[in-house]
Amino acid sequence: MHIQAISVIPEVFAPYMDASILGRAQKAGLFSFESFDLRNWTHDKHRTVDDAPFGGGPGMLMRPEPIFEAVRSLQEENLSQRGSEAHVIFFTPAAPRFDQKKAQELAQKDQLLFVCGRYEGMDERVLTLADEQLSLGDFVMTGAEVAAMAVADAVVRLLPGALGNELGTEEESFSVPGLLEYEQYTRPALFEGMAVPEVLVSGDHQKVFAWRMKNALLRTARLRPDLLHTLQLSDDALTLLGAALTEEEKQEIRDAFDTYKRHT
Amino acid sequence: MHIQAISVIPEVFAPYMDASILGRAQKAGLFSFESFDLRNWTHDKHRTVDDAPFGGGPGMLMRPEPIFEAVRSLQEENLSQRGSEAHVIFFTPAAPRFDQKKAQELAQKDQLLFVCGRYEGMDERVLTLADEQLSLGDFVMTGAEVAAMAVADAVVRLLPGALGNELGTEEESFSVPGLLEYEQYTRPALFEGMAVPEVLVSGDHQKVFAWRMKNALLRTARLRPDLLHTLQLSDDALTLLGAALTEEEKQEIRDAFDTYKRHT
Repeated sequence: MHIQAISVIPEVFAPYMDASILGRAQKAGLFSFESFDLRNWTHDKHRTVDDAPFGGGPGMLMRPEPIFEAVRSLQEENLSQRGSEAHVIFFTPAAPRFDQKKAQELAQKDQLLFVCGRYEGMDERVLTLADEQLSLGDFVMTGAEVAAMAVADAVVRLLPGALGNELGTEEESFSVPGLLEYEQYTRPALFEGMAVPEVLVSGDHQKVFAWRMKNALLRTARLRPDLLHTLQLSDDALTLLGAALTEEEKQEIRDAFDTYKRHT
Repeated sequence: MHIQAISVIPEVFAPYMDASILGRAQKAGLFSFESFDLRNWTHDKHRTVDDAPFGGGPGMLMRPEPIFEAVRSLQEENLSQRGSEAHVIFFTPAAPRFDQKKAQELAQKDQLLFVCGRYEGMDERVLTLADEQLSLGDFVMTGAEVAAMAVADAVVRLLPGALGNELGTEEESFSVPGLLEYEQYTRPALFEGMAVPEVLVSGDHQKVFAWRMKNALLRTARLRPDLLHTLQLSDDALTLLGAALTEEEKQEIRDAFDTYKRHT
């Protein structure tokens, strides 16, 4: 996979993209990354990328010309050097929220191109360049660079081989549909009076499995009852998933689900 | 405000925290930032921060001892040098999602301390150190560093004086309760056949205001009908907000709201 980012602060990406798991994935040839300074596509002495909004108001908007020129010039290069254009992503507050399902979808693409806005916003016309608009959530940042890093990270770690242990990608939160991950513990078994649950140090694999399923179910019911929507909450399913659930615990999960449904 | 981050890749923060608006805010003394290498609080030759999970399974977990030691040592310093401990934030998938309201709340704090997990997760006991747990959304990253940058950015830009033009923080998406921002345009008025809406170049401030309210209302109804929940959708409110709304447009907004309500 080839990932590109256009930004007025192109220097912020490399330290993160080169570190740790992403850095190893780059060295292993799983993906490559380039960032580009939007100002390379300006033609005035001051390399101006923003201008005042029509109709007045505070703040500055990103001008359309440099963005159009940047995307087109990179796409020409992508087409001639890599055989196809990149999937172009803009971040806009009204767009669908980025999630794990979208990460899995983007992990199938050969090339991603992030266009990172700054200032108060962008001229609306630049969005005609977007293959896709995404939002990171209902909050406002000074620019889209961090959003691009978040998406790039979530996508790259799904590429086969990116994590040392490939099981990792499937066994954690939001990859098991409808359930949060169970609590995890490592050594020491006793730390400042806080003990690891006994069953986890027992070495009894069946009991460990049962404890984890039960823990995941109860955590989900308590913390994210909305996720229970995707679960079949028949008693059979509860028995299967929560092998060691007591009647009270089963009732707690049913109640959490009912309460959530009543409130939406 | 003083912001700290503990991480095994502490070098990834500075390039972003020093750039653009955040960099200017730091230079203006609005906030200061430090990142710390978690490995400074290990005591073995290999500076080990992770270990295998009890009960088996793929991946590695972050060990509790270095994290406890790091947070306590920084908090002692915070207490002695700055008179109070920092507000400690961990990122966990089950936590409440970070949003603009939370950004406004965190912008009132004097000190924030982000503890950034990596690998497959953290020993559950480290969460007893957290004053607050947050999630960036329903997706999985290789670590919490990007989430910490996102929260730091969203918080710092709310500090008085951080944006050149202070009106900026109040006049955009998710700061106007219940409405997306209106579309914005800058020069040129005509770009490759795409014209800026005529009213915006008219210079008639009342008409510009009416167009913007109408545009924000219709965009919200089309793209984020869930946000209409917080709006009073009486005809009076619609008339006030959407001065130039036609009967058909008012009906479209009512329909969008009703459709959303029926689906939840």
